[in-house]
Amino acid sequence: MVLAVDKRIGKHAILLVLQSEAEESISLPPHWKYCTGKVGAMDSQKVVSAIETAAKREGIIRTNGYRETHALYHAIMDALSGVTRGQVQLGSLMRTVGLRFAIVRGNPYEEMEEGDWIAVALYGTIGAPVRGSEHETIGLGINHM
Amino acid sequence: MVLAVDKRIGKHAILLVLQSEAEESISLPPHWKYCTGKVGAMDSQKVVSAIETAAKREGIIRTNGYRETHALYHAIMDALSGVTRGQVQLGSLMRTVGLRFAIVRGNPYEEMEEGDWIAVALYGTIGAPVRGSEHETIGLGINHM
Amino acid sequence: MVLAVDKRIGKHAILLVLQSEAEESISLPPHWKYCTGKVGAMDSQKVVSAIETAAKREGIIRTNGYRETHALYHAIMDALSGVTRGQVQLGSLMRTVGLRFAIVRGNPYEEMEEGDWIAVALYGTIGAPVRGSEHETIGLGINHM
Amino acid sequence: MVLAVDKRIGKHAILLVLQSEAEESISLPPHWKYCTGKVGAMDSQKVVSAIETAAKREGIIRTNGYRETHALYHAIMDALSGVTRGQVQLGSLMRTVGLRFAIVRGNPYEEMEEGDWIAVALYGTIGAPVRGSEHETIGLGINHM
Amino acid sequence: MVLAVDKRIGKHAILLVLQSEAEESISLPPHWKYCTGKVGAMDSQKVVSAIETAAKREGIIRTNGYRETHALYHAIMDALSGVTRGQVQLGSLMRTVGLRFAIVRGNPYEEMEEGDWIAVALYGTIGAPVRGSEHETIGLGINHM
Amino acid sequence: MVLAVDKRIGKHAILLVLQSEAEESISLPPHWKYCTGKVGAMDSQKVVSAIETAAKREGIIRTNGYRETHALYHAIMDALSGVTRGQVQLGSLMRTVGLRFAIVRGNPYEEMEEGDWIAVALYGTIGAPVRGSEHETIGLGINHM
Ligand SMILES: [Mg+2]
Ligand SMILES: [Mg+2]
Ligand SMILES: [Mg+2]
Ligand SMILES: [Mg+2]
Ligand SMILES: [Mg+2]
Ligand SMILES: [Mg+2]
Repeated sequence: MVLAVDKRIGKHAILLVLQSEAEESISLPPHWKYCTGKVGAMDSQKVVSAIETAAKREGIIRTNGYRETHALYHAIMDALSGVTRGQVQLGSLMRTVGLRFAIVRGNPYEEMEEGDWIAVALYGTIGAPVRGSEHETIGLGINHM
Repeated sequence: MVLAVDKRIGKHAILLVLQSEAEESISLPPHWKYCTGKVGAMDSQKVVSAIETAAKREGIIRTNGYRETHALYHAIMDALSGVTRGQVQLGSLMRTVGLRFAIVRGNPYEEMEEGDWIAVALYGTIGAPVRGSEHETIGLGINHM
Repeated sequence: MVLAVDKRIGKHAILLVLQSEAEESISLPPHWKYCTGKVGAMDSQKVVSAIETAAKREGIIRTNGYRETHALYHAIMDALSGVTRGQVQLGSLMRTVGLRFAIVRGNPYEEMEEGDWIAVALYGTIGAPVRGSEHETIGLGINHM
Repeated sequence: MVLAVDKRIGKHAILLVLQSEAEESISLPPHWKYCTGKVGAMDSQKVVSAIETAAKREGIIRTNGYRETHALYHAIMDALSGVTRGQVQLGSLMRTVGLRFAIVRGNPYEEMEEGDWIAVALYGTIGAPVRGSEHETIGLGINHM
Repeated sequence: MVLAVDKRIGKHAILLVLQSEAEESISLPPHWKYCTGKVGAMDSQKVVSAIETAAKREGIIRTNGYRETHALYHAIMDALSGVTRGQVQLGSLMRTVGLRFAIVRGNPYEEMEEGDWIAVALYGTIGAPVRGSEHETIGLGINHM
Repeated sequence: MVLAVDKRIGKHAILLVLQSEAEESISLPPHWKYCTGKVGAMDSQKVVSAIETAAKREGIIRTNGYRETHALYHAIMDALSGVTRGQVQLGSLMRTVGLRFAIVRGNPYEEMEEGDWIAVALYGTIGAPVRGSEHETIGLGINHM
């Protein structure tokens, strides 16, 4: 199993999330799926929920069954680790986020047997609940589907 | 204090780290400094050390005094949180990383009084110490200098 | 001090918690105490509270004084670590639990001077707040009383 | 998707790991696979390695490809969270473990589409590197394959 | 850069926070600033907020701009780590704190170029939301301004 | 159970650890025991070991049996949480500590039935393995014996 150079699923997800909505254009490998969205919250639950809802609504993961929801959930948790860097908490630590997210699904490996994987990328700001009192933050979670 | 659109220090750092060495070209705001490098390790200490050494050698931070070393250290820790997602451990959890890093220094805010900040971006792979048994990983740490 | 083979307090607690209410029957060493119960929650506080309340109501720990409450509290925290695996959070990470718990009190060592210890075992499911979107989870905390 | 009563993969794994080698006998659902083993270590890496090696040698997961190794790895990490309760470290925190492990693979849900899942159960003692200065510990990790 | 013996900013902060309000008297190095206060909460956000508000009201940090707020915020997080020892959570883990805090600002190093640093010290009790079911707790966070 | 004003075990431990060896003089409540010591390390295991060894050598805890060793161990872990603030790691995160420690044993409550408790206080510096590249750090762990 080797990560194919032009099928870096995490890199694709990060590039998608870094684009402004206007400029969003990226050429993904054939048969890959993706969606993007935005969420602002002092409540980490709201971030999880926004990403799961988008993934199901846009057909990135199956809406019934648990398997794909489970894969996505842990990818989101990993992405939130990068965003929060230590404690996966927002409002309870007096901070808020304004995030764009990208979800990409596909097989990043040369071998077909590796099957589908999912990448969740988050980019935006984190800081005090005061306009401007914030800096950038990023997170990436990758999981097998 | 407002993050200036074209002075997103974290975005600049991530774009730098996502480029291959060949294509590395990015226009940073005037007076900003940056450097990039690579490190592979099963030993988190080696990652910290490689980044600190590069930052001092390339003149991103002062080589004497503690203040700037302290700022960089915590930015590295935050970036490692994103890479490791939970426990900031590599070999002791039987995993290894192959990372590119970018360090960017500058003021990302509209207001001059915000002074210099530092961004450390990490991108690469994490996985078992077996070629190909790995997926991508990313981390970003931002701190005031 | 040696853990006595037939006085494994953690094993007894886990076996208790794995039984359905109907089949609950276990022979504990003489003078040991135990109780079992159930709690479902998106709120980790509610889990802690249910266990503490049961332990006091069933006479496993003293209702007045702090010492035994303190011992139980940290055993619960340890058990919750196993259930949550990383962040000891439920609803704020968009997940819910349905748990059975068992609390066992006794001396698991050969030597009488080791005194009483407490074991808290948790078993059940953790997952999204959607019926069936869940998998099993387990936790065990052990502390000296 | 509903967890089937007699296909509780985590419960099966825990019951397996609680048995002594002599009494090991358990009837798993048809087509499920499992193996058990032992590992003692002050080095968490050695625990991970022992479980991965057994899983591959006993044919629980594929020896080539990354997908199944990745699924197992994160199940092991989750199980180690329960064992270590906070910091997933052993020797560096001056403690050692003596563990039995069980790995079970199968589909615990009513629906066939949920596919295979893996459960890693750990049971044993944790404590100071002095005979008898230890108490029991348990961990369970569950992941989709 | 060397920590000056009589300019131990953390030691000064801890001594301040250990004093009762009545006896509060401490001689700080010239040009240093400090303030003290009290906060009781089951809500970690309330602790953060009380400290930030005091620091701004008493002129320890600038009320506008982000830089100094950011420095203080991470010092508070570090202090809360000591108070909570693992999960930076209070009410969600069924515990409450009654804390005094001290904030000290100054340069603890021999070299002038090290500039200002900030120390946040917390001292008080942590425990169950029942009078007397608590023990002492302490935390110290130090950051460059 | 009420913490007695003049029997604050944590406060006593912190005051002891803040004193230089020369000035060490503190009047503890009758029948209390304490000891102090120093340890410098890039290896967290060495810190744990130094404290356990001193506690046994000075008769603060029993040298045989597990119960008191267990109580001390978790108090040390809690104190190390304050010192390390997040990951309880030193050398693997490229940092070193120079610490004084104090261990105090006694009953801090009005009620005799609360029995003995133990406090472990740590104070010193943490930073890069370069002289002077460090700031102060503190930690306190309290447990029932
Ligand atoms: Mg992974
Ligand atoms: Mg920050
Ligand atoms: Mg223990
Ligand atoms: Mg899961
Ligand atoms: Mg620091
Ligand atoms: Mg406690």
